[in-house]
Amino acid sequence: MSEANRSARREALAKRLRSVVDGPHVLSTNAELAPYECDGLAAYRVVPLLVVLPGSVEEVQAVLRICHEERAVVVARGAGTGLSGGALPHEDGVLLSLARLNRILAIDPDNGCARVQPGVRNLAISEAARPHGLYYAPDPSSQIACTIGGNVAENAGGVHCLKYGLTVNNLLAVDLVTVEGELITLGGSGLDGAGYDLLALATGSEGMLGVVVEVMVKLLPIPQRAQVALAAFTEVETAGQAVADIIAAGILPAGLEMMDNPSIRAAEDFVHAGYPTGAAAILLCEVDGGNEEVSEDIARVRQRLLDSGASEVRTASDDLERARFWAGRKAAFPAVGRISPDYYCMDGTIPRKHLPHVLREIARYSTDSGLRVANVFHAGDGNLHPLILYDANNPGELELAEEVGGRILELCVEVGGTITGEHGVGLEKINQMCAQFPPEELQMFHDIKAVFDEHGLLNPGKAIPTLNRCAEFGAMHVKAGDLRFPHLERF
Amino acid sequence: MSEANRSARREALAKRLRSVVDGPHVLSTNAELAPYECDGLAAYRVVPLLVVLPGSVEEVQAVLRICHEERAVVVARGAGTGLSGGALPHEDGVLLSLARLNRILAIDPDNGCARVQPGVRNLAISEAARPHGLYYAPDPSSQIACTIGGNVAENAGGVHCLKYGLTVNNLLAVDLVTVEGELITLGGSGLDGAGYDLLALATGSEGMLGVVVEVMVKLLPIPQRAQVALAAFTEVETAGQAVADIIAAGILPAGLEMMDNPSIRAAEDFVHAGYPTGAAAILLCEVDGGNEEVSEDIARVRQRLLDSGASEVRTASDDLERARFWAGRKAAFPAVGRISPDYYCMDGTIPRKHLPHVLREIARYSTDSGLRVANVFHAGDGNLHPLILYDANNPGELELAEEVGGRILELCVEVGGTITGEHGVGLEKINQMCAQFPPEELQMFHDIKAVFDEHGLLNPGKAIPTLNRCAEFGAMHVKAGDLRFPHLERF
Repeated sequence: MSEANRSARREALAKRLRSVVDGPHVLSTNAELAPYECDGLAAYRVVPLLVVLPGSVEEVQAVLRICHEERAVVVARGAGTGLSGGALPHEDGVLLSLARLNRILAIDPDNGCARVQPGVRNLAISEAARPHGLYYAPDPSSQIACTIGGNVAENAGGVHCLKYGLTVNNLLAVDLVTVEGELITLGGSGLDGAGYDLLALATGSEGMLGVVVEVMVKLLPIPQRAQVALAAFTEVETAGQAVADIIAAGILPAGLEMMDNPSIRAAEDFVHAGYPTGAAAILLCEVDGGNEEVSEDIARVRQRLLDSGASEVRTASDDLERARFWAGRKAAFPAVGRISPDYYCMDGTIPRKHLPHVLREIARYSTDSGLRVANVFHAGDGNLHPLILYDANNPGELELAEEVGGRILELCVEVGGTITGEHGVGLEKINQMCAQFPPEELQMFHDIKAVFDEHGLLNPGKAIPTLNRCAEFGAMHVKAGDLRFPHLERF
Repeated sequence: MSEANRSARREALAKRLRSVVDGPHVLSTNAELAPYECDGLAAYRVVPLLVVLPGSVEEVQAVLRICHEERAVVVARGAGTGLSGGALPHEDGVLLSLARLNRILAIDPDNGCARVQPGVRNLAISEAARPHGLYYAPDPSSQIACTIGGNVAENAGGVHCLKYGLTVNNLLAVDLVTVEGELITLGGSGLDGAGYDLLALATGSEGMLGVVVEVMVKLLPIPQRAQVALAAFTEVETAGQAVADIIAAGILPAGLEMMDNPSIRAAEDFVHAGYPTGAAAILLCEVDGGNEEVSEDIARVRQRLLDSGASEVRTASDDLERARFWAGRKAAFPAVGRISPDYYCMDGTIPRKHLPHVLREIARYSTDSGLRVANVFHAGDGNLHPLILYDANNPGELELAEEVGGRILELCVEVGGTITGEHGVGLEKINQMCAQFPPEELQMFHDIKAVFDEHGLLNPGKAIPTLNRCAEFGAMHVKAGDLRFPHLERF
């Protein structure tokens, strides 16, 4: 679209939108639009045509009806904390912010659930449920800021999803506004919905099938107690094996996290968590439940870690020390940000047993490319978050980081894993989708998308690559075990 | 199809199928076909055109390719224990039995999962995992006989799904053969699949989207200990309230079951479980976990039950008594079968807080219709299994039982619940789908079905009613709270 056309389009669309949403909540000047140009994947920036902030479900419906009539692209946005570019605006489209739909509608302890609007922050749900002894389990690192609508769109996880599952496992129902402006309810307070499971289909669909306007989440009893063990290892592979050993012993930790030496040192410098900076890797293993149960389990975890070759195992002596152990892990990303001008956060998942092999390979890519890689991950889930350190001011380094990142994701597919653990595909990993899925399955995704959105107005260009794009990318779908990408041979 | 045409069609199709599956495994005589004429919903019987029992995934693919070319209907069948008629044959179609695909392919304790063929019995998975201290959690009452493929197709539940979830919550991946004979893998060993969640979409899709040929299930550590409390109540409503009180107290029982007086007496007469036959209702509340945790929890459960008005609470003194407490519940269906020539088992789900109201209404339908109703249900999930007692030899009684059953399901929708808890929709509840879903959502289901099966060859006439059928049935979709069915006014 030419700039003049764009301007005219902006004006015409703004006028129509202002007929259904209060004027001040339709943003159209450059200064107003700038804050929305990116989400948590800040390497990509696009100024949207317009931003609209509806104040009610009815307004969301009206906005979508207008955009549908006008064939305008719509990108929904929660808090914009997503790390895969799922909420990156479209230059000719409307950015639909759900920020004003931020009310907790009901906390229902009898049925163990809460009804909330999409703009409610993840942590705010647990805060509201606490007086009833309940909480909402999924806890992404961004839980202070991220909103439940975005959590649904990306099927967000967190430190505790090994035991408590992802967002999809903690939902009862979602109200969705379709691209035509219809309001439909997916799921319900019952156990198993009849018909196809559209709730699961919509969860993690990255805003491609509809706009989430209300969420009914499950609330769980707050565990009586939690305890964490910190284990140090002199070899990364040994730590990887210890993870497998704990799970194989029949222990289901609430969280089981791993950090390698670069991450340990960065975190220790930043928050002084008391980590052993000489260790090649540490594991943080948390158990929760009843008082006695936790005592039993933590003793078993401790013994198992020592049997698996930990050089040292410490258990937190009180809640303060426990908080300190976790502070290092939770601050790992910003801590790495302090030691490198830029970093690129990956999010792949692998079967746990391949952890040692994958860690060795990542180290090799790091050596070969000359870029440092710090590894922080949800080891219990096999969910890796390698942070690739680079300097965007050095020509070619961003591209090299992206190439290393792509190679890591393809390695995840190679060993039978997947290219996303909990951050979604968004824009970031769309090329790797070509490696994970054969054309027939990608076509199936497109066909399903068309059932909900035949004109492709909802968040186009995200999550599901076109078959043309895959052909251009030059990647071929691979089965685990036989991945070969000619253009990545250098690693 | 005329009988002559049917015969010719049978012969031609059998010939083609025998080119890809060993002759003896393509059944075509009346004597051979008769055992397949119904599943667990024996009130409906249809002799299929042919039965084929492929011996490998490749054979399943070849069978589907032929049926697709011939435009022959295919109904897949596991053990045939389903209670909603999902595996009822089509008179002009092929009944595809997965019984020969019955191998456990791998038990993987390191990754806490097992790979099995679809014809493996549910309980056989736990038996194979036991040496590793692991088990497969979902436990439908039919778990000795039912197969995992059927469990996936119906998204089966069980006594313990309050804590451990339905089949969909315990799956990692499913290999599906499409109607064209393509083999695709849905899900994976990773945490969160990229793309839309086709695994959840296929789970519970009742054989309408593809044929399950391999399943990767999660295995969980066997709990150290389980303990059960049996509480007696003089009022059904008080028992219903006690269920809500337990959940609201933040206790998450492994199972929380309720039986009313007719069920109690039938079960006691049959298996001598030691139930209080004078009680209006009993609750069975099981907790599991570590030794100490269980001791703590069962004490809390006991106190809570007494506070909620239980006239008596007994805890099992040992595993033998615990097994006896459960024996009555598990034998409840056959026990009711002993006191009535026929019974019709319903399967609706409601928000727990409506239990007292719904139980009162069911009692009223029973009085008004003159048919006895025995209630047995997964109270913790709000999943009702009212058993409507009737005698098929009395003209009109089956129809009356179906009418009462339909009215109960519509009541479930009225209070915000759903028409199926864990048995699926199948043929049995297809009319009630018209009450639960508005036409737009039913159309969405049909559109999704068409993505997988454009000619409608897979299990047609099940699970999703046509809009025409809904118009004929005369039901209108209702929102919770305003259900009125003119043709059911008599209740």
